[in-house]
Amino acid sequence: IQGVMKPSSVALRSRRVVLVRAEAQSINPAIRKDEEKVVDSVEVAELSKPLTPYCRCWRSGTFPLCDGSHVKHNKATGDNVGPLLVKKQKE
Amino acid sequence: IQGVMKPSSVALRSRRVVLVRAEAQSINPAIRKDEEKVVDSVEVAELSKPLTPYCRCWRSGTFPLCDGSHVKHNKATGDNVGPLLVKKQKE
Ligand code: FES
Ligand code: FES
Repeated sequence: IQGVMKPSSVALRSRRVVLVRAEAQSINPAIRKDEEKVVDSVEVAELSKPLTPYCRCWRSGTFPLCDGSHVKHNKATGDNVGPLLVKKQKE
Repeated sequence: IQGVMKPSSVALRSRRVVLVRAEAQSINPAIRKDEEKVVDSVEVAELSKPLTPYCRCWRSGTFPLCDGSHVKHNKATGDNVGPLLVKKQKE
Protein backbone atom coordinates (compact mmCIF):
# COMPACT_ATOMS: atom_id res chain seq x y z
CA ILE A 1 0.00 0.00 0.00
CA GLN A 2 1.72 3.10 -1.19
CA GLY A 3 2.47 5.70 1.37
CA VAL A 4 1.90 3.46 4.37
CA MET A 5 4.84 1.82 6.08
CA LYS A 6 4.49 -0.94 8.60
CA PRO A 7 6.89 -1.06 11.49
CA SER A 8 9.52 -3.64 10.69
CA SER A 9 8.61 -5.65 13.76
CA VAL A 10 5.93 -5.53 16.39
CA ALA A 11 6.93 -7.04 19.72
CA LEU A 12 3.84 -8.84 20.95
CA ARG A 13 5.05 -8.65 24.52
CA SER A 14 5.38 -4.89 24.37
CA ARG A 15 2.68 -2.74 25.87
CA ARG A 16 3.26 -0.19 23.13
CA VAL A 17 2.52 -0.52 19.46
CA VAL A 18 4.02 2.21 17.32
CA LEU A 19 2.24 2.90 14.05
CA VAL A 20 4.17 4.85 11.48
CA ARG A 21 2.24 6.48 8.70
CA ALA A 22 4.29 8.05 5.92
CA GLU A 23 2.84 10.84 3.86
CA ALA A 24 2.60 10.29 0.14
CA GLN A 25 5.90 11.52 -1.14
CA SER A 26 7.19 14.01 -3.64
CA ILE A 27 9.02 12.49 -6.57
CA ASN A 28 10.95 15.67 -7.34
CA PRO A 29 13.33 16.40 -4.47
CA ALA A 30 15.07 19.48 -5.82
CA ILE A 31 14.41 20.55 -9.40
CA ARG A 32 13.06 24.11 -9.84
CA LYS A 33 11.10 24.03 -6.60
CA ASP A 34 10.32 27.71 -7.03
CA GLU A 35 8.00 26.81 -9.92
CA GLU A 36 4.44 25.77 -9.17
CA LYS A 37 4.60 23.10 -11.89
CA VAL A 38 7.67 22.08 -13.83
CA VAL A 39 6.66 21.76 -17.47
CA ASP A 40 9.18 21.68 -20.31
CA SER A 41 8.82 21.87 -24.06
CA VAL A 42 10.78 20.19 -26.79
CA GLU A 43 10.73 21.89 -30.15
CA VAL A 44 11.67 18.87 -32.14
CA ALA A 45 12.76 20.86 -35.16
CA GLU A 46 15.44 22.43 -32.98
CA LEU A 47 16.97 19.16 -31.77
CA SER A 48 20.43 18.66 -33.17
CA LYS A 49 20.72 14.91 -32.71
CA PRO A 50 18.48 12.15 -34.10
CA LEU A 51 17.80 10.84 -30.58
CA THR A 52 17.56 12.87 -27.36
CA PRO A 53 16.79 11.28 -23.97
CA TYR A 54 14.59 13.28 -21.58
CA CYS A 55 14.60 12.69 -17.84
CA ARG A 56 11.59 11.19 -16.04
CA CYS A 57 13.34 10.39 -12.73
CA TRP A 58 13.75 13.98 -11.49
CA ARG A 59 17.36 13.29 -10.52
CA SER A 60 19.23 14.55 -13.60
CA GLY A 61 21.88 17.20 -13.27
CA THR A 62 20.97 18.35 -16.78
CA PHE A 63 17.18 18.29 -16.40
CA PRO A 64 15.04 18.21 -18.54
CA LEU A 65 17.64 16.10 -20.32
CA CYS A 66 18.60 12.66 -18.97
CA ASP A 67 22.18 12.36 -17.72
CA GLY A 68 21.97 8.73 -16.60
CA SER A 69 21.15 9.54 -12.95
CA HIS A 70 18.15 7.18 -13.14
CA VAL A 71 20.66 4.29 -12.81
CA LYS A 72 21.72 5.39 -9.32
CA HIS A 73 18.11 6.08 -8.30
CA ASN A 74 17.01 2.64 -9.50
CA LYS A 75 19.85 0.91 -7.65
CA ALA A 76 19.17 2.82 -4.43
CA THR A 77 15.44 2.22 -4.38
CA GLY A 78 14.69 -0.86 -6.49
CA ASP A 79 12.79 1.37 -8.87
CA ASN A 80 12.65 0.84 -12.65
CA VAL A 81 12.38 4.29 -14.18
CA GLY A 82 14.06 5.52 -17.31
CA PRO A 83 14.02 8.32 -19.87
CA LEU A 84 11.77 9.24 -22.75
CA LEU A 85 13.68 9.03 -26.02
CA VAL A 86 12.65 11.69 -28.50
CA LYS A 87 13.52 10.66 -32.02
CA LYS A 88 13.79 13.24 -34.69
CA GLN A 89 13.02 12.29 -38.24
CA LYS A 90 16.16 11.86 -40.27
CA GLU A 91 16.27 14.24 -43.16
CA ILE B 1 17.16 15.57 3.98
CA GLN B 2 15.56 13.27 1.46
CA GLY B 3 14.59 9.85 2.69
CA VAL B 4 14.87 10.68 6.36
CA MET B 5 11.78 11.53 8.32
CA LYS B 6 11.85 13.08 11.73
CA PRO B 7 9.22 12.05 14.21
CA SER B 8 6.61 14.77 14.29
CA SER B 9 7.23 15.37 17.98
CA VAL B 10 9.71 14.20 20.55
CA ALA B 11 8.45 14.27 24.11
CA LEU B 12 11.37 15.43 26.14
CA ARG B 13 9.99 13.84 29.26
CA SER B 14 9.80 10.45 27.61
CA ARG B 15 12.45 7.87 28.32
CA ARG B 16 12.17 6.63 24.78
CA VAL B 17 13.15 8.34 21.59
CA VAL B 18 11.89 6.67 18.45
CA LEU B 19 13.91 7.29 15.32
CA VAL B 20 12.20 6.55 12.04
CA ARG B 21 14.36 6.14 9.00
CA ALA B 22 12.58 5.82 5.66
CA GLU B 23 14.28 4.12 2.76
CA ALA B 24 14.82 6.18 -0.37
CA GLN B 25 11.61 5.65 -2.27
CA SER B 26 10.57 4.49 -5.70
CA ILE B 27 8.90 7.15 -7.78
CA ASN B 28 7.08 4.65 -9.99
CA PRO B 29 4.52 2.79 -7.90
CA ALA B 30 2.94 0.62 -10.56
CA ILE B 31 3.85 1.18 -14.20
CA ARG B 32 5.30 -1.86 -16.04
CA LYS B 33 7.02 -3.21 -12.96
CA ASP B 34 7.90 -6.36 -14.89
CA GLU B 35 10.38 -4.30 -16.93
CA GLU B 36 13.87 -3.74 -15.57
CA LYS B 37 13.84 -0.17 -16.87
CA VAL B 38 10.90 1.64 -18.39
CA VAL B 39 12.15 3.49 -21.46
CA ASP B 40 9.82 4.84 -24.14
CA SER B 41 10.43 6.27 -27.57
CA VAL B 42 8.63 9.02 -29.42
CA GLU B 43 8.92 8.92 -33.17
CA VAL B 44 8.05 12.52 -33.71
CA ALA B 45 7.20 12.05 -37.37
CA GLU B 46 4.39 9.73 -36.26
CA LEU B 47 2.76 12.17 -33.86
CA SER B 48 -0.61 13.28 -35.13
CA LYS B 49 -0.98 16.46 -33.11
CA PRO B 50 1.29 19.52 -33.01
CA LEU B 51 1.73 19.17 -29.22
CA THR B 52 1.79 15.95 -27.21
CA PRO B 53 2.31 15.90 -23.42
CA TYR B 54 4.37 13.03 -21.99
CA CYS B 55 4.10 11.93 -18.37
CA ARG B 56 6.94 12.46 -15.91
CA CYS B 57 4.97 11.78 -12.72
CA TRP B 58 4.53 8.02 -13.17
CA ARG B 59 0.86 8.28 -12.24
CA SER B 60 -0.77 8.52 -15.68
CA GLY B 61 -3.40 6.00 -16.71
CA THR B 62 -2.25 6.47 -20.29
CA PHE B 63 1.52 6.31 -19.68
CA PRO B 64 3.80 7.26 -21.42
CA LEU B 65 1.29 9.99 -22.28
CA CYS B 66 0.19 12.53 -19.65
CA ASP B 67 -3.47 12.30 -18.64
CA GLY B 68 -3.41 15.06 -16.04
CA SER B 69 -2.81 12.76 -13.06
CA HIS B 70 0.14 14.92 -12.02
CA VAL B 71 -2.41 17.41 -10.63
CA LYS B 72 -3.68 14.92 -8.05
CA HIS B 73 -0.15 13.82 -7.19
CA ASN B 74 0.99 17.42 -6.69
CA LYS B 75 -2.00 18.21 -4.47
CA ALA B 76 -1.50 15.10 -2.34
CA THR B 77 2.22 15.58 -1.80
CA GLY B 78 3.04 19.25 -2.32
CA ASP B 79 5.14 18.25 -5.30
CA ASN B 80 5.52 20.35 -8.46
CA VAL B 81 5.95 17.89 -11.31
CA GLY B 82 4.49 18.17 -14.77
CA PRO B 83 4.76 16.76 -18.27
CA LEU B 84 7.22 17.15 -21.10
CA LEU B 85 5.52 18.77 -24.07
CA VAL B 86 6.75 17.43 -27.39
CA LYS B 87 6.09 19.90 -30.17
CA LYS B 88 6.03 18.73 -33.71
CA GLN B 89 7.02 21.13 -36.42
CA LYS B 90 4.03 22.47 -38.27
CA GLU B 91 4.14 21.55 -41.92
S1 FES C 1 18.55 11.00 -15.49
FE1 FES C 1 16.43 10.95 -15.08
S2 FES C 1 15.68 9.47 -16.50
FE2 FES C 1 17.79 9.50 -16.86
S1 FES D 1 -0.01 12.51 -15.79
FE1 FES D 1 2.08 12.33 -15.28
S2 FES D 1 2.90 14.27 -15.85
FE2 FES D 1 0.84 14.44 -16.33
